[in-house]
Amino acid sequence: MFQSFDAQSSPEQGPPRLEALRQVIAQHGFDGFLVPRADAHQGEYVAPRDARLEWLTGFSGSAGFCVVLTDIAGVFIDGRYRVQVQAEVATEFTPVHWPEVKLSDWLQEQLPNGGRIGIDPWLHTMQEIEQLREALDNIEMVPTDNLVDAIWSDQPAPPDAPFIAHPIEQAGEAHDKKRVRLAKTLEGNAAVLTLPDSIAWLLNIRGGDIQRNPVPQAFAILHNDGSVDLFAGSLKAHDILDHLGTDVRLHNVGYFLDVISALKGTVQVDPKSCPEIVATTLGNATLLRKQDPCVLPKAIKNDIEIAGAKAAHVRDGVAMVQFLAWLDKQAPSGKLTEIDVVTALEGFRAQTNALRDISFDTICGSGPHGAIVHYRVSEKTNRKVGKNELLLVDSGGQYIDGTTDVTRTIAIGTPTDEQRRCYTRVLQGMIAVSRVRFPKGVGGQHLDALARAPLWMAGMDYDHGTGHGVGSYLCVHEGPQGISRRSDTALEPGMILSNEPGYYREGAFGIRIENLIVVTNAQPIAGADDRQMLDFETLTYVPFDRRLIDLSLLSTAERDWIDQYHTDTLMLLEQRLDETTQGWLRSACAPL
Amino acid sequence: MFQSFDAQSSPEQGPPRLEALRQVIAQHGFDGFLVPRADAHQGEYVAPRDARLEWLTGFSGSAGFCVVLTDIAGVFIDGRYRVQVQAEVATEFTPVHWPEVKLSDWLQEQLPNGGRIGIDPWLHTMQEIEQLREALDNIEMVPTDNLVDAIWSDQPAPPDAPFIAHPIEQAGEAHDKKRVRLAKTLEGNAAVLTLPDSIAWLLNIRGGDIQRNPVPQAFAILHNDGSVDLFAGSLKAHDILDHLGTDVRLHNVGYFLDVISALKGTVQVDPKSCPEIVATTLGNATLLRKQDPCVLPKAIKNDIEIAGAKAAHVRDGVAMVQFLAWLDKQAPSGKLTEIDVVTALEGFRAQTNALRDISFDTICGSGPHGAIVHYRVSEKTNRKVGKNELLLVDSGGQYIDGTTDVTRTIAIGTPTDEQRRCYTRVLQGMIAVSRVRFPKGVGGQHLDALARAPLWMAGMDYDHGTGHGVGSYLCVHEGPQGISRRSDTALEPGMILSNEPGYYREGAFGIRIENLIVVTNAQPIAGADDRQMLDFETLTYVPFDRRLIDLSLLSTAERDWIDQYHTDTLMLLEQRLDETTQGWLRSACAPL
Repeated sequence: MFQSFDAQSSPEQGPPRLEALRQVIAQHGFDGFLVPRADAHQGEYVAPRDARLEWLTGFSGSAGFCVVLTDIAGVFIDGRYRVQVQAEVATEFTPVHWPEVKLSDWLQEQLPNGGRIGIDPWLHTMQEIEQLREALDNIEMVPTDNLVDAIWSDQPAPPDAPFIAHPIEQAGEAHDKKRVRLAKTLEGNAAVLTLPDSIAWLLNIRGGDIQRNPVPQAFAILHNDGSVDLFAGSLKAHDILDHLGTDVRLHNVGYFLDVISALKGTVQVDPKSCPEIVATTLGNATLLRKQDPCVLPKAIKNDIEIAGAKAAHVRDGVAMVQFLAWLDKQAPSGKLTEIDVVTALEGFRAQTNALRDISFDTICGSGPHGAIVHYRVSEKTNRKVGKNELLLVDSGGQYIDGTTDVTRTIAIGTPTDEQRRCYTRVLQGMIAVSRVRFPKGVGGQHLDALARAPLWMAGMDYDHGTGHGVGSYLCVHEGPQGISRRSDTALEPGMILSNEPGYYREGAFGIRIENLIVVTNAQPIAGADDRQMLDFETLTYVPFDRRLIDLSLLSTAERDWIDQYHTDTLMLLEQRLDETTQGWLRSACAPL
Repeated sequence: MFQSFDAQSSPEQGPPRLEALRQVIAQHGFDGFLVPRADAHQGEYVAPRDARLEWLTGFSGSAGFCVVLTDIAGVFIDGRYRVQVQAEVATEFTPVHWPEVKLSDWLQEQLPNGGRIGIDPWLHTMQEIEQLREALDNIEMVPTDNLVDAIWSDQPAPPDAPFIAHPIEQAGEAHDKKRVRLAKTLEGNAAVLTLPDSIAWLLNIRGGDIQRNPVPQAFAILHNDGSVDLFAGSLKAHDILDHLGTDVRLHNVGYFLDVISALKGTVQVDPKSCPEIVATTLGNATLLRKQDPCVLPKAIKNDIEIAGAKAAHVRDGVAMVQFLAWLDKQAPSGKLTEIDVVTALEGFRAQTNALRDISFDTICGSGPHGAIVHYRVSEKTNRKVGKNELLLVDSGGQYIDGTTDVTRTIAIGTPTDEQRRCYTRVLQGMIAVSRVRFPKGVGGQHLDALARAPLWMAGMDYDHGTGHGVGSYLCVHEGPQGISRRSDTALEPGMILSNEPGYYREGAFGIRIENLIVVTNAQPIAGADDRQMLDFETLTYVPFDRRLIDLSLLSTAERDWIDQYHTDTLMLLEQRLDETTQGWLRSACAPL
């Protein structure tokens, strides 16, 4: 079992640690210290050693930060975590709505002129620090050792999992080809890589340093001759030296700053992910600020990766259907808990014998818990799945050939008419994105409203993006592609995205429906213009809960789309199921 | 009659002028010279004196520029002008698709290292020159006197129309209040204003220097005490000194550079509109780059301006309905020309006795001319309105209480099924924007796809934005609001926009349907969330051509929307029409 249900944190742990941190802050002559959720690699998951934000505050969300000042400690959280933070932090901490409230404005309000805030320059990106410095008058950001580490006596060691070669049968392109291809795109003499999934993709390696994301914690320098300097804990790459070859030079991570301080010429750094300390250490080089050169090529999956994703989704779909059939049988008893549900679902995925990890901690929210967008059940929050409630289950698997991410909302017992209307509007939004054709050049920010319009028309909305990029046996959240107001990357064939509108009524219920989709070249329409259009091919095949669909709201095109989707689902999965589950699937996939 | 139909330019005029310009360029030791369409105020219309691009090349479009080098003269034009440019310029000029081809890339390709390009620093914005310099390696942009002026012996004099006070009954807010309100928003000691419509709005004045846009050509400095220095031709403001009062100090425009060269402290300039020469002359001040402080407040119309817009639209709607009824009677003869149509339409507007100007030269394209997005008929291009053709008419009026802009596409004779399908999809897009509700914070870039999705689904699209901001008896195109992929300004109640999707089939027909809409606070929906939502109220009431609507493509909601729109149109306009036209309108507005 990958997922655990211990409450890793409690509100009580925060206040004494906060007190201790304030003493160290004072000893250093600072007025405050910044505690981000991020580690030096800016990933969504962090190793236990780097879970400083949770250790200090109790807040366990995947994004946010704490600003510890003398009199106030602000916990900055976005729309997804407004509800969750209230349960997780003590009253000594003050939740702040971010990004509505800017850190700089807040600091300016709280601090006197001449205030000095300590920062750990490994944990903040160049861009973060620059924007902060620009926005702040008379408040200084001072690089320092990490003051949380200073008071964290039993802080875990850095992770040290061995790297694994990712086979060409899954990667589709050898790493020497990738290195040479990317080297040609460099405008500088070299590029510093600090994102583990960039390094994983470029070198066709995977790792186990971080839960859920099979990435190696490492740094690298890609040179314009296609060679790479790789920096990692001593023993991590021991087993894959042959795979790496001679053009990938391995160094102990302790030498990383020394090597980059000696770099000359023009060196590319990505201000959005490069730690501040890397920028300040590159003193002998001319900095060229550019997006990490791996980010876009990695997002555009090759044919073999897409074929792998399809295979992974069929496998994952079988597990999901078994799960949904099981749930339909068990849930009416009213005895199942959220943990029972999560455990069962992971069990069905494990039965595939191909599950490397789950792709994130399953979000399983029954009734009011469904409204907590990124709810993660623990022994402490665990509740029964009630007899007439909605159950929101957002989960995914890491398979060697692909990463999955699927959300279904299920009616336990009888849903209300209101719940059915809300579910149907969410589904209409998901269908609008699934069906749309669009010209090349369009970015996710232009498509986001299509998913929301059916909700908007009824005065509703959701406080998260519609879709994120998904890696290929890599991070379940990857950039640069996305479907949200901020996603300005033009969509290109081969990009995998999630499509997951939702609706949340605090204290009552939550609805989210999510498929993964891949951008494809659209089939030309007879008699239409010769514009090159793109569209989405669906990867996820798992039936929707027909009990939650209000047919009166659907257009003919929407209804046809659902029926076709269910027909395809049945065709893909039926033969892979036992007889009982086949029967369940046939009912679930019958025409509406 | 405001509009004229003389071909103001011909392809033949270009080559000898190009030859002469190349001689002057060589005398100055340059490798080329930039000839923008813009004047020092970056407006869409320019005075005859400033029509350098047209004078040199023959190209009469409202955007673009020419780069004259020794061997090649590139005319850079955007998607709207691809067809038009071919008819207007001689083969000595090379059309370049812009912005797909970047000027910097093109220059880099055409010119040797060390190339020197002359520019007139009054005609290029700070941002233009900065971006160009940044993108160019070893090619220098050198400020110089205008070399076109040097060879243009009969260049007209600068315009010198008197300023007119814009009454408080229309403006809704006195200029002393506006000045003090805006002064409080300044972050610098002063802001330099170079946009005529900003100055017009701020000081409640209008002018007659430029056709179609009732703006005064002037420069101004807004100080943080609310006072203004106004720079204009000597006699222009003579009649409105009382209106301006003592806190608006009038200077001859010849002193503008002297005064700003003496400015000290922090001075705000808008890099998107401020001429390069203003930036380089502000040597004693610290430059603060910020949007022109008038731009956003001007875009948000007050209640009196909105009431004025509604009155202007009813008046304009009456003229449009008279025109459409007339057209239905006259067009079947097959004898009408495009010029006849434009003349008749302006006549109906003039009959309102309130028309100050047309708000732009009417676009009246029959048959294949409809596919030229910004077609402007001249004696030379004039053609008969054929018996079975589509006619696209895009026009508007300047009234003291509001600016209108409306497009209708009319079937002359019998349209094809294909044309009806295309028209209906365009209409569906326009309806989608008209009907949408959306949360605060959404910008036009997020709504643009709603207008296109019905076309996209059939493999079609259009190469222009969906909507632009519209002024209040000011420019028919104003920023910062808009509905296009590039419109990142959050929409706010009071903003007036156009909503004008289209579809163009080169050489065959063009379709565009346009209403003006104003952003409003949406009426709450019973039982919905308490999110504050916005929506659009329609300002334009002119019937659609029901002969072009393919009912089979419409949803019930779309059909209901059209019927309601027609009911409202009838109610608003019927009593203001003669009996015959009433009859026409009743048929046009009957339920579908």
